[in-house]
Amino acid sequence: MATQREKAARLRQLHDGPRLLVLPNAWDVASAKVIAAAGAHAIATSSAGVAFALGFPDGQRISRTEMLGMVRRIAGAVEVPVSADVEAGYGPTADAAGQTARGVVEAGAVGMNLEDSLEAGELVPLELQVSRIQAARAAAAAAGVSLVINARTDAFAARGLAADARIVEAVRRANAYLGAGADCAFVPFVSDREAIGRLAREIRGPLNVLAKPGSPPLAELERLGVRRVSVGSAIALAAYGRARRSAVELLGSGTYQALEDAIPYAEMQKLLGQA
Amino acid sequence: MATQREKAARLRQLHDGPRLLVLPNAWDVASAKVIAAAGAHAIATSSAGVAFALGFPDGQRISRTEMLGMVRRIAGAVEVPVSADVEAGYGPTADAAGQTARGVVEAGAVGMNLEDSLEAGELVPLELQVSRIQAARAAAAAAGVSLVINARTDAFAARGLAADARIVEAVRRANAYLGAGADCAFVPFVSDREAIGRLAREIRGPLNVLAKPGSPPLAELERLGVRRVSVGSAIALAAYGRARRSAVELLGSGTYQALEDAIPYAEMQKLLGQA
Repeated sequence: MATQREKAARLRQLHDGPRLLVLPNAWDVASAKVIAAAGAHAIATSSAGVAFALGFPDGQRISRTEMLGMVRRIAGAVEVPVSADVEAGYGPTADAAGQTARGVVEAGAVGMNLEDSLEAGELVPLELQVSRIQAARAAAAAAGVSLVINARTDAFAARGLAADARIVEAVRRANAYLGAGADCAFVPFVSDREAIGRLAREIRGPLNVLAKPGSPPLAELERLGVRRVSVGSAIALAAYGRARRSAVELLGSGTYQALEDAIPYAEMQKLLGQA
Repeated sequence: MATQREKAARLRQLHDGPRLLVLPNAWDVASAKVIAAAGAHAIATSSAGVAFALGFPDGQRISRTEMLGMVRRIAGAVEVPVSADVEAGYGPTADAAGQTARGVVEAGAVGMNLEDSLEAGELVPLELQVSRIQAARAAAAAAGVSLVINARTDAFAARGLAADARIVEAVRRANAYLGAGADCAFVPFVSDREAIGRLAREIRGPLNVLAKPGSPPLAELERLGVRRVSVGSAIALAAYGRARRSAVELLGSGTYQALEDAIPYAEMQKLLGQA
């Protein structure tokens, strides 16, 4: 078993190329096991997916404790490094961000996302977000692990910014966050090729974008200079989509077609470590 | 909001026909919300699904507390009655079964499954299982709710019983369990039409069977006299199958086809009660 420090180093190194780091996000232990078995080099969690599974809408309605509870289960179940999506750190202050980072380390994860919007459409002042990243870095170091910090800017979802201003703001914030000690800059909500290429050129560190149906394929994102791609809650929503289709079919025609193409029970038992 | 007693009465009534009670099993809150929104009249949990999501193989490796924790989340999130799959009651004794029944009531569910095998292939002595059912019934009554007890017999998975002996044993046990106060007899692992028809005729109460791809369609099960159908972990395994397909595609061709046909994010937010 690799130590937590070794896993942090391994996750950090996966941002250095030459290949794109692809993170198919998990939301519970079974999904993490399945995604790891599919060959993922690391597991990133989806905060929305975890929230949905445990009964909350996305957007910091779940508590830090409950979110980290699922992160702990996942990190304890897979051998690959785990990066925790902990939204905006469950509190507006630098202290809250530090406390969350310490919790991420204690949960056994080796990376974390930290967002710069506490409310949809509103960006935290840049200086405050810089201090929140520094606090997360310091708290993790004090806890003994150099967490891989993926600093997210929601500039592309900010109210009152024109398209061009969004790119400028995303670059400005990404570079400030990298300067404050973040390892990677996460700019979601952009799928335009030209914009992504410009972000990759102007951001002075690894760039993470969010991919979804309609985004350029991963090979193209790699050519554009992206270093890390995640998919947020997309896999969870696809899985629950399959659950819905199964239920609708059972309750409607009373047949079982949507239940085919499942993971066999015996295989899932083995994945979960049946003796 | 219906009270817990009203929900228990409603669930019990759903066994009286004229239509088959179809229970597409859920394993977390999001799946329960999706299945309820698809029109299910009640939600049954899948103990295997819950175990997988939280990091355990199926078969009482998860604790009673953790299993009931997820049941509580689900029961608190849907308006329809919830029946909890609590395996063999997390202990071999009548006391354990009673304690589990009390926990099911406290978690807000109004029904429970109780299995008669503690180890794969081994049936609990009939008299002991009868006393376990009586203990569950009494504990629930003491807690103020007339739980709908779905007594499961694993006669069809018992080692050392020939096919014909299995039917005889399933009928003998089902009738003893119904006589002891169970509301419904659950006989899984049988999909042969003739055997199901015979079970429905010879069991003196509602019959629950487990359906899966390859089983007779629900309309036919209804004609055979089945009153309740559930699918165990099949929907969870289909959902995780979709997660696997998504991950394999992302890590392979780097495209997003398996992510289509997902539940839209905004719709899931609404299902989870976003303000």
